[in-house]
Amino acid sequence: MKKSGRRRDDSKRFGWPFFVGVEVLVHFSCTMDTTEFRRRGKEMVDLIADYLENIEQRTVYPDVEPGYLRSLIPEEAPEEPDTYEDVVKDIERVIMPGVTHWHSPYFYAYFPTANSFPAMLADMLSGAIGCIGFSWAASPACTELETVMMDWLGKMLKLPEDFIAGTHGQGGGVIQGTASEATLVALLAARCRAVRMILASDPQRPETGITSKLVAYSSDQAHCSVERAGMIAGVRMKKIPTEQSDKYAVQGETLRRMIQEDKAAGLIPFYFCATLGTTPSCAFDHITELGPICNAEKIWMHIDAAYAGSSFICPEFRPLLNGIEFADSFNFNAHKWLLVNFDCSTMWVKKRSDLIGAFEMDPLYLKHDHQESGLITDYRHWQIPLGRRFRSLKMWFVFRIYGLKGLQDYIRKHVELAKEFESLVRADQRFEISADVVLGLVCFRLKGSNEVNETLLKRINNGRKIHLVPCLLSGQFVLRFALCARTTESRHIREAWQLITQLAEEVMQELPH
Amino acid sequence: MKKSGRRRDDSKRFGWPFFVGVEVLVHFSCTMDTTEFRRRGKEMVDLIADYLENIEQRTVYPDVEPGYLRSLIPEEAPEEPDTYEDVVKDIERVIMPGVTHWHSPYFYAYFPTANSFPAMLADMLSGAIGCIGFSWAASPACTELETVMMDWLGKMLKLPEDFIAGTHGQGGGVIQGTASEATLVALLAARCRAVRMILASDPQRPETGITSKLVAYSSDQAHCSVERAGMIAGVRMKKIPTEQSDKYAVQGETLRRMIQEDKAAGLIPFYFCATLGTTPSCAFDHITELGPICNAEKIWMHIDAAYAGSSFICPEFRPLLNGIEFADSFNFNAHKWLLVNFDCSTMWVKKRSDLIGAFEMDPLYLKHDHQESGLITDYRHWQIPLGRRFRSLKMWFVFRIYGLKGLQDYIRKHVELAKEFESLVRADQRFEISADVVLGLVCFRLKGSNEVNETLLKRINNGRKIHLVPCLLSGQFVLRFALCARTTESRHIREAWQLITQLAEEVMQELPH
Repeated sequence: MKKSGRRRDDSKRFGWPFFVGVEVLVHFSCTMDTTEFRRRGKEMVDLIADYLENIEQRTVYPDVEPGYLRSLIPEEAPEEPDTYEDVVKDIERVIMPGVTHWHSPYFYAYFPTANSFPAMLADMLSGAIGCIGFSWAASPACTELETVMMDWLGKMLKLPEDFIAGTHGQGGGVIQGTASEATLVALLAARCRAVRMILASDPQRPETGITSKLVAYSSDQAHCSVERAGMIAGVRMKKIPTEQSDKYAVQGETLRRMIQEDKAAGLIPFYFCATLGTTPSCAFDHITELGPICNAEKIWMHIDAAYAGSSFICPEFRPLLNGIEFADSFNFNAHKWLLVNFDCSTMWVKKRSDLIGAFEMDPLYLKHDHQESGLITDYRHWQIPLGRRFRSLKMWFVFRIYGLKGLQDYIRKHVELAKEFESLVRADQRFEISADVVLGLVCFRLKGSNEVNETLLKRINNGRKIHLVPCLLSGQFVLRFALCARTTESRHIREAWQLITQLAEEVMQELPH
Repeated sequence: MKKSGRRRDDSKRFGWPFFVGVEVLVHFSCTMDTTEFRRRGKEMVDLIADYLENIEQRTVYPDVEPGYLRSLIPEEAPEEPDTYEDVVKDIERVIMPGVTHWHSPYFYAYFPTANSFPAMLADMLSGAIGCIGFSWAASPACTELETVMMDWLGKMLKLPEDFIAGTHGQGGGVIQGTASEATLVALLAARCRAVRMILASDPQRPETGITSKLVAYSSDQAHCSVERAGMIAGVRMKKIPTEQSDKYAVQGETLRRMIQEDKAAGLIPFYFCATLGTTPSCAFDHITELGPICNAEKIWMHIDAAYAGSSFICPEFRPLLNGIEFADSFNFNAHKWLLVNFDCSTMWVKKRSDLIGAFEMDPLYLKHDHQESGLITDYRHWQIPLGRRFRSLKMWFVFRIYGLKGLQDYIRKHVELAKEFESLVRADQRFEISADVVLGLVCFRLKGSNEVNETLLKRINNGRKIHLVPCLLSGQFVLRFALCARTTESRHIREAWQLITQLAEEVMQELPH
């Protein structure tokens, strides 16, 4: 753009039409060039810093009605360029009123999504390099940094050697967009492996006949994306019942019984998705019990630790991952709790060939010289999409600028704040804790009906001072208080609790006695 | 971080341990705060501007061997933070030697991927807001801007009213990550619709029995991700043969015959993926012929215009999209040729309910008040992943800062440059053009054997001055010259051609006579 920018200036200086015959080029140059980007980029950095510095002053949950935005902007794109100033002005006028501020220290809904300055800087660089790393050759640095960063993170988690790519390993890691995609990719690899195993012993059997007998399993507490993965792949997915008395964890005995019943009915068990840190209550399936069962039955065990996974970098939480040695694949969202901005869902497999075999496609336009060397990785065979951003830059910046200790401290801070909130709840006789507080999620409720808790939550969210979402545990309507923002401190927790108790009092006073 | 930052300074001033009992917080504060981000962010803006301003000076295709990167960095993440200066220094030392520079004006491989300053600025803002827009409530602005931007773009393309969400429409648009995902999502929606239609007339029929009879179609020129979508969904995908004499376009007669044969064999045709602008040669299937056949047979017609789609905003190229009125869904990658950085794959459907019905899942933790109002969109039901970035900001910035005319000029500039390259090829008797040059792709080859063309391409890429990839057309090895970078000018084209002819001369002189 430098050249075009200069041309525009020249054309002004010498008067139009200076460049006869290059009309298109001159037209096209009338947009943002490098010089203007230097200025606007720096303004944007300040805008971002201001936004995050003052985010507490904003209403965490927006007070807009569906359809609010359409009337605020034109019905069509402009023919001629708008000024940059007008676009920036519209951020406050059009966008901000409708933003749910996930990085406000008053946001306690869902699970966290990461937001850190090193990750944002790396993402800016990634946008500028703008390579599409579907193959090694499409940008070797993009592929290689990813493999090494996945090894770094795998070592932080003390994953078994099997999952580390190293220079000779059969396993390794890949960045997926989301945990949903990781679950699906694992399921598809498992489906492919199961079909091949059966065809190996019974080559005449029709493939559709096999698929229709396949059965996958997950907890009734598993994320909805697990069930969805089954629908996409067109295979049966059975939910394993869990009990409050077992802390909502899948028990080995239950899985074993279901497998036996299904086999007796002529079905083929092939995939089990274990959850470490479920979405409703952060429950942990007993993978030390479940893993050996899966291994014995040649069932692919995938571990979805979307939220909890980040905590395993702390030695005190690492035991929660014991049993990983039995898994075929493991995934968590570094973009949730490890300060790497979305998207960065980190997934490891024990055998790369299992994954690659399920997806490999090699048209000529994607072939390259090194492909057959065995040394390279073409990540397009590891995922659903073909294209991919240079996402490992975010991991690299974050890991180096925080250091392992900085990341551990961050996890510990959130867990401490959750414990602090738990103790506030426990000190109030009107409330109860609904599930063990292991990490940064506190499930709690008013002792009493679901109705009163639904009313309380509605009051809390309508107040818009803090934001929470509910869950159902054993039929009980429960409030989830999830530590989310990077900047949440003890004072925010206490403020939130004060507000909750105040609203609870109002709600209970209105109740018919 | 402002607070933490201040604490760190205070703790220095008053001497450690000033804050007894907040050790974790103080530890954690030893990382980048807002003040430092203001500085580093501005430095990064300059680094990016410098990179893009001087990208011509870099070797477009890196000269590294597989595994080059691992030895350049430590085997493990640091325990203690590295300095930011060290990280930045490593960009040149570790990353850049392995980058394929997609935005160099010497890059002519694959298809373009977009890179513009307005898109990068919007993406910075998106990273800071960092919301995960899986539902309307998770950030209303994220959902609503997307719906309206997809309407803006739909109107630029003069899509039939059916595809515009408006305030009352049954259709509408969604941003997918990649065209591969759009193809898959359309296929899954089609599968679901087909199964439901059959079950409606024959409720006793087992669902797996239906799936195993389903058959989908696409051109033998279609992107490999189309075949892959069939594999993922577990349905049969048949390739429709094309001919050089038909310009590699699928003909209505061929599709009609295949459908009849398959129906006679007891199969159920349900999905056809048409391509407008194929990857090998930018061929266009005859959708005005194919659409009515699909409609009559109740076959879902999806149109994949991944590359070519952007050009349809120009009135002179819009006729290529004629027949869109017969389609159920349509997709192209605005992140390819419309100056919106990856990822932004824009997809429209005629009936939102077809898509949503295939995916809907509503656990309590994702429910919200407005869900049943009929006014809102929960985009998680439109896609494979659950989470999603605020990507429509990129469209908003780009459409406004370029204006429709600026975008049209950009498309026209690339097409003109392609025509210029084509005329250079045609003027040289040793070469031939292998497919019509319709947009920004020129398929050409040396008259002669595949071997000589393979050698030529190898020579070109090993020279590392320009970068191209090949394709196969009717068994012939063909070189693809794709206009990619935003800053490519006529002088680059001429320079590239000079280099190609020079290498061709060398290659031909070495040939045994």
